[in-house]
Amino acid sequence: MENKEPKMIVKTNVVRVIGENNPLRLSSGKYLAPIDIAYETYGTLNQDGSNAIFICHALSGDAHAAGYNSLDDKKPGWWDNMVGPGKGIDTNKYFVICSNFLGGCSGTTGPGSINPATQKPYNLDFPLITIADMVKVQKLLIDKLGVKKLLAVMGGSMGGMQVMQWAVDFPDFVQAIIPIATTTKLGAQSIAFDAVGRNAITADPDFQKGNYSQDNPPAKGLGIARMIGHITYLSEKGMHEKFGRQLRNADSYSYDFNSEFSIETYLEYQGQSFVERFDANSYLYITKAMDYFDLEEKYGSLSQAFNKTDARFLVLGFSSDWLFTPAQSMAIVNSLEASGKFVSYCNIQSPYGHDSFLLEPQKLGKFLSSFLDSIYEPRIIKNETKTNLKKKDIYSRLRARVDYEQIESLIECNSSVLDVGCGDGTLLVNLTRDKNISGRGIELDEQMILECIGKGLAVIQHDIEKRLSNFADDSFDYVILSQTLQTVANPEKVLKELLRIGKKVIVSFPNFAHWRCRLQLALCGKAPVSEKLPYGWHDSPNIHFLSMKDFENFCADLNIKIEKKIPITKNRLSPVKLIPNLFAEEAIYLTSK
Amino acid sequence: MENKEPKMIVKTNVVRVIGENNPLRLSSGKYLAPIDIAYETYGTLNQDGSNAIFICHALSGDAHAAGYNSLDDKKPGWWDNMVGPGKGIDTNKYFVICSNFLGGCSGTTGPGSINPATQKPYNLDFPLITIADMVKVQKLLIDKLGVKKLLAVMGGSMGGMQVMQWAVDFPDFVQAIIPIATTTKLGAQSIAFDAVGRNAITADPDFQKGNYSQDNPPAKGLGIARMIGHITYLSEKGMHEKFGRQLRNADSYSYDFNSEFSIETYLEYQGQSFVERFDANSYLYITKAMDYFDLEEKYGSLSQAFNKTDARFLVLGFSSDWLFTPAQSMAIVNSLEASGKFVSYCNIQSPYGHDSFLLEPQKLGKFLSSFLDSIYEPRIIKNETKTNLKKKDIYSRLRARVDYEQIESLIECNSSVLDVGCGDGTLLVNLTRDKNISGRGIELDEQMILECIGKGLAVIQHDIEKRLSNFADDSFDYVILSQTLQTVANPEKVLKELLRIGKKVIVSFPNFAHWRCRLQLALCGKAPVSEKLPYGWHDSPNIHFLSMKDFENFCADLNIKIEKKIPITKNRLSPVKLIPNLFAEEAIYLTSK
Repeated sequence: MENKEPKMIVKTNVVRVIGENNPLRLSSGKYLAPIDIAYETYGTLNQDGSNAIFICHALSGDAHAAGYNSLDDKKPGWWDNMVGPGKGIDTNKYFVICSNFLGGCSGTTGPGSINPATQKPYNLDFPLITIADMVKVQKLLIDKLGVKKLLAVMGGSMGGMQVMQWAVDFPDFVQAIIPIATTTKLGAQSIAFDAVGRNAITADPDFQKGNYSQDNPPAKGLGIARMIGHITYLSEKGMHEKFGRQLRNADSYSYDFNSEFSIETYLEYQGQSFVERFDANSYLYITKAMDYFDLEEKYGSLSQAFNKTDARFLVLGFSSDWLFTPAQSMAIVNSLEASGKFVSYCNIQSPYGHDSFLLEPQKLGKFLSSFLDSIYEPRIIKNETKTNLKKKDIYSRLRARVDYEQIESLIECNSSVLDVGCGDGTLLVNLTRDKNISGRGIELDEQMILECIGKGLAVIQHDIEKRLSNFADDSFDYVILSQTLQTVANPEKVLKELLRIGKKVIVSFPNFAHWRCRLQLALCGKAPVSEKLPYGWHDSPNIHFLSMKDFENFCADLNIKIEKKIPITKNRLSPVKLIPNLFAEEAIYLTSK
Repeated sequence: MENKEPKMIVKTNVVRVIGENNPLRLSSGKYLAPIDIAYETYGTLNQDGSNAIFICHALSGDAHAAGYNSLDDKKPGWWDNMVGPGKGIDTNKYFVICSNFLGGCSGTTGPGSINPATQKPYNLDFPLITIADMVKVQKLLIDKLGVKKLLAVMGGSMGGMQVMQWAVDFPDFVQAIIPIATTTKLGAQSIAFDAVGRNAITADPDFQKGNYSQDNPPAKGLGIARMIGHITYLSEKGMHEKFGRQLRNADSYSYDFNSEFSIETYLEYQGQSFVERFDANSYLYITKAMDYFDLEEKYGSLSQAFNKTDARFLVLGFSSDWLFTPAQSMAIVNSLEASGKFVSYCNIQSPYGHDSFLLEPQKLGKFLSSFLDSIYEPRIIKNETKTNLKKKDIYSRLRARVDYEQIESLIECNSSVLDVGCGDGTLLVNLTRDKNISGRGIELDEQMILECIGKGLAVIQHDIEKRLSNFADDSFDYVILSQTLQTVANPEKVLKELLRIGKKVIVSFPNFAHWRCRLQLALCGKAPVSEKLPYGWHDSPNIHFLSMKDFENFCADLNIKIEKKIPITKNRLSPVKLIPNLFAEEAIYLTSK
């Protein structure tokens, strides 16, 4: 016999949040009453009510996010790999709520509910609803549960839309906003897929203008809609790796129209099993709510939409998601960052397409737990966490120490700082602790991003050369580019951008004209290798080589003002005074326009 | 009144290629007779019959590729922007044939044709057909027309599948094979889309197991299938740029289930108009033929499939095509190249997705005409064509001349040569003319690729660092890497790969230890700038800097044998003899394992 963990048994509750005589005004202007909400909770609300997390589900989800509804249940809730004791969303620590959204078909009022006016199901008489309507009703539930504030609201896909609507409509109620694999508005292609799905449902003769009986739903139409949806949830690559061109149960083609490729039968099975658990009318209402969602149009701009909230945002996307793309995640991040909100972002590498938010519990869980913990149990890390560092990384950290102290000396207290290429966030943490700065970071490495998030830093995963244009002029008191200028493709463009977005720019780089370098080339005829330039000509991440003189000429050509320079050398904390371009191994410059 | 070009009027002919008493054996083992083919021709077959081009159409195309069928016709043929006098496929020069494929619904025998056994339409009694069946019938047509050989077969999408089948089944009949935006086998995602489309058709109650009347076809089902297909033909970006979230004819949401986004109405219109011109049963048969197409499975491997042909291949893909992706085009190229076939490839930059093959007549036309001309009217270009060169390019050409002559001196006659980073192909043309080599090139720049193709060279557009692994050990007598080692990210990996695939490798690079460089760094403390290293530290495409000594140490470390070195300097044709690492501006090495 298998030795299994005991099943976590949860009950789906239903509560009336809108009574029959007190109808809710919807976005469309129509009124709806009564409204019941199905929900589940996991974990325990703590005494000061500071550990409550609300989870918003996606198109085909429901209130049953985790655990089992009974001992006989074969399948756990839809996000059971993420929500539970010791999991990414740790129910030993947090009190988690999930509810079926308005218009759904799993306990919450929707088109399948009884219309009090007719005592029959609403069907297509149910009013059209929006994401904002869903969130309005979710807030009523939270109030009803006696929860006074939320630590976080999170959700993937359409769940992420609700998450963002929470930030817009209840800006002071939530501390952390976590939209995952989502967008502030569908693009034309997604609207198109939704429209085709709806067409398939309404074209089914069993649809009967929505007045089908539960015994005879428009199964073919809903199945086709689900098949289309399912294709968009997987990546082309992931799907091909799983199914390829396998035939279901034959070695050669059947030369008839039966389903014979494994992917065909898989999709048909997905379509059929969806029909058993989902209502076709709900599908119409929900996809329409998605199509309508457009924070930009509704509020004039995204910045305007998010204007009122001071919540911290963690935006997560997945590299292979082609339904709600990384570019769409980036658009959310751009607007938040441009308006000075606290936002961290990572485009998590995953092969599973849009469904990654359900299929990457390990990777996603680390981001969620780090971010939640950084808010719920904030800490400044004094001693660095030990990780498996590569030799290159160790070197870069040792090196960093010396110039970090010098860089700190250049920065005034209470200023705003952008660290471009911030690594694990050490410098930003130091500056926050010692100078009370408000800091932000840009970094490319996923693991580094995770470390920064754990330290409570706002950090964006992005290529710095493409990132800077998002910031307005003079967005920061200081921008730091430490040991990175020599690795970017276009140093001139980068430096100009840094000087546009920062009032002052601090640049550090290894000095190529140090005497050891000069000697090696002049006397030995070899490309220099030194402690500050430790790589061979062929394996160096440095793609430009410059001396202090080169940099100073460059600044003169570009009309960049050098306010201060600190030539440094190893094992000495005080700057090099004698012929710095000959004796300094590294140089730090404070520049301005 | 508009002054228009006179309409080119063409007639669609129908010819019987299989008589009633002489049935054709199909891939499925079933027999079919009679078979009629609808076709059109444009231009005139020349006296030696060397100018005939056959065009294969895609899923929804037909024989009417170009011109108008009558003066009243409003729309020209489906590829009218490509086929005609002076166009990409110039009918003043070439004789062009296009026919509706087997199983189609535009004049060629298909499921809508009369079954002689019943005197009623076949409908689903029509046997399943394959791409190979289609091509078999196309060949019968070509024979019937008295065409003894084809200069080229070309086509996009499913047309490209037929093109490749031509190369497999009639390897000696065609000189040039041009598959465009296509694949040798559908992946799981494409099979999935096809399957959903077929499900939508067969789920339509009007489908009647295929026995619908022409007055009452399964319009909704076929319309949905077409809508799905149409989404896959456009890129997400292209679609969004064209339609975005525009509402059709309102400023605000209607809050009902009518189509309101422009993209919805556009797709529905596409679906409806398709129903008027296309037969649902044909759609089933054709998509199934596409799903079945798998050259790799059928012949053991792609190399095996293409084994018998000596035709020249031009494979073209489009950057934004997500239905038949550039990676799928690359797979065709890889197998052809690995088995030593003549193949050129370009991934044409275009925003229009899969439909680019219909929507980029200018770009695509240049590639087609250059390639066709290079075979029909071959030439070796002696004087370089004048183009608008950037300063950087001019410099690189001037520089190239000196080391080209030295490189030529290292290469034996009648050898095989791969030029990695071949530019406009000048060196390969010179070597072909002077040393009778058989050459191939790799290059990244689209315009350079086009120039190479015009010169009759086999050239692949690819990043050299990702490309080399495709070649087998010792594939070439010589591999040339001219002035490129210092620009690749990983010189060690590149050099090792070059030595794996070439018996000898010729490498040239600027010598960083030339006395001028040494002096500039040693005395002036500046990063060197010289004639051979003409860039500033910040704007150089060179990302590594190496001296002759560095390279020689590097070769010693990697056990690379230096067979010959030619240190050169400007304005002198003879090699530098005195202290080359001090006096040579550039070095050419002949190396081997």
